[in-house]
Amino acid sequence: MDRARAAAAGTGLVIAPGSDLRYFLGQAGGSFERLTALVIPADGAAALIVPKLEAPGYADLPLDDLGVEVVTWVDGVDPYELAAKRLGSVERVAVSDFTPALHVFGFRDALPKAEQVLAGPIVRELRMRKDAAEIDALRKAGAAIDRVHARVGEWLRPGRTEAEVGADIEAAIVAEGHTVADFVIVASGPNGASPHHALSDRVIEAGDVVVVDIGGPVAEGYNSDSTRTYSVGAPRDADVAETYAVLREAQQAAVHAVRPGATAESIDAAARDVIAAAGFGDFFIHRTGHGIGLDVHEEPYIVAGNSLPLEAGMAFSVEPGIYQPGRWGARIEDIVVVTADGGESMNNQPHDLVQV
Amino acid sequence: MDRARAAAAGTGLVIAPGSDLRYFLGQAGGSFERLTALVIPADGAAALIVPKLEAPGYADLPLDDLGVEVVTWVDGVDPYELAAKRLGSVERVAVSDFTPALHVFGFRDALPKAEQVLAGPIVRELRMRKDAAEIDALRKAGAAIDRVHARVGEWLRPGRTEAEVGADIEAAIVAEGHTVADFVIVASGPNGASPHHALSDRVIEAGDVVVVDIGGPVAEGYNSDSTRTYSVGAPRDADVAETYAVLREAQQAAVHAVRPGATAESIDAAARDVIAAAGFGDFFIHRTGHGIGLDVHEEPYIVAGNSLPLEAGMAFSVEPGIYQPGRWGARIEDIVVVTADGGESMNNQPHDLVQV
Repeated sequence: MDRARAAAAGTGLVIAPGSDLRYFLGQAGGSFERLTALVIPADGAAALIVPKLEAPGYADLPLDDLGVEVVTWVDGVDPYELAAKRLGSVERVAVSDFTPALHVFGFRDALPKAEQVLAGPIVRELRMRKDAAEIDALRKAGAAIDRVHARVGEWLRPGRTEAEVGADIEAAIVAEGHTVADFVIVASGPNGASPHHALSDRVIEAGDVVVVDIGGPVAEGYNSDSTRTYSVGAPRDADVAETYAVLREAQQAAVHAVRPGATAESIDAAARDVIAAAGFGDFFIHRTGHGIGLDVHEEPYIVAGNSLPLEAGMAFSVEPGIYQPGRWGARIEDIVVVTADGGESMNNQPHDLVQV
Repeated sequence: MDRARAAAAGTGLVIAPGSDLRYFLGQAGGSFERLTALVIPADGAAALIVPKLEAPGYADLPLDDLGVEVVTWVDGVDPYELAAKRLGSVERVAVSDFTPALHVFGFRDALPKAEQVLAGPIVRELRMRKDAAEIDALRKAGAAIDRVHARVGEWLRPGRTEAEVGADIEAAIVAEGHTVADFVIVASGPNGASPHHALSDRVIEAGDVVVVDIGGPVAEGYNSDSTRTYSVGAPRDADVAETYAVLREAQQAAVHAVRPGATAESIDAAARDVIAAAGFGDFFIHRTGHGIGLDVHEEPYIVAGNSLPLEAGMAFSVEPGIYQPGRWGARIEDIVVVTADGGESMNNQPHDLVQV
């Protein structure tokens, strides 16, 4: 709470349910039409505004130790007025990035003189540099998803659909130590050229190149996210080996570029330059990575235009891809944490095209 | 689209991923930090603004038939400017209720002269009155959850934890025809006094009263939501039978009050009056119901202060409860659809306290 107040510098903070709330209180809560929000005024006690019928769900949290008072409300009461009283006559109110418009406008009406801004830039100052316990949780998540990748050969076979393979992987994500499978991408053959393809009824054929991008949270709430590209037998297309070698080099160059002081965009450039030099620049159609922690996607984003200098404890994906529309695609993704003098990969499965 | 434009009456519409988007396009999409939004200007073609790498996920939709153009963007482009161009120099922009603040402020900055309002009041005019196909889907969902309630006796036994019983129910929700179990409440003994208690490691004992509130969507996207209250053997507490009889009467009174022209709040009052007259008014700590459809909670809300007259096709829960703090609780919930001359319940399991 003290770090939050310091980062907010006089701005009132409103934190809605989600990973920001989990960061502050240890519990994400639920996002419904009834307002639940942690309100942190510039001065005075923080308060958790919560519908009376949902209050028992927060009873086990150390709210007293955190100096957070619980303020319950029942249907018919205006919860935004309750929150506004706590915030007082503040000039600016920052609301967490994923606060629903429903509540954003509720606060706007209850605090008509306050300028509304996003809490993201404030909260990211707290969340972006992971401490030792957070890095341990990311390491645990990384090892768990590595164990799943190590087993993909058990399930990925010609004649099975992406959805069938995905169901097996989903079960393994949980069996290997995640609380839930957050996403499962099995993008085979031409589907691999769509970076966010999930699962389909396409039947996997011998010769297919298959992108498998999977992850989920461990009990501590921190997420894994790792991609490997597989080949079902020898690849059908003659250009796979040479193109994949370019991707492999690009991913390695970006991982090796990670160190304190390097900018986020320089990591993107390290991968992109290799791919562009080989003539595949137009086939790398997304940024190189995203931060990861309690959210699968969070700051810092590894993207052109982000001049943020990396610092020890920052954690993000390094995941260049090369996508050949209508034919095949490939991506390699590790989560990397910035250390005092470089980067540590949370994912340590081999980076070669995995022939199954 | 035409009905949306008519309901919006000159206001530009921005629909973010979620059930509103599913209502318009047949697919909910995903809500991430990158903007995806359906933009419906007062004049001119609607557009789906979507990150290029997520565009393939919308390729199977009949967007041409709907007159929706796809506008893709890549990292580095300002998607709010793309959307603003579509909306033109509009005076008011309505954003869907669960649009994240991140995007709300993106639109605010791109359209600084436009007043921002919630799209909820516009969209609910479209979504609140279900057509025959939607009611069929709700009926299918209701029958599926009824089949799960009919089997609760297989799993609810002394010596098992709420979580163990909940896991069996969760599997049955899917087995009986839902795509996923959206929520499973098994609130035993004193936990039953917390309306939104979910599952815990409490071991169920003989004599416990247990609230089981469960639901999820069927393939069409429409949801079930039904509560029955169980007794594990004869109830331990002497006041259960008499109190439950009051609840039973209250729930029945509210269901019987449903007809076109009755106000939403009159349905709430029908249940609440019975409970209050019996002296349990302070133990009924939530509204009587919520609308249901593509969302589990949507308009119309059955709550004091909502003078909306009911119309044929409206669908909502009728779920009064009586909660005895620290001792036990009970709730009965059916989904009811307003018909030409009354109401039709989607749930038809017996309403008595179910002794298992």
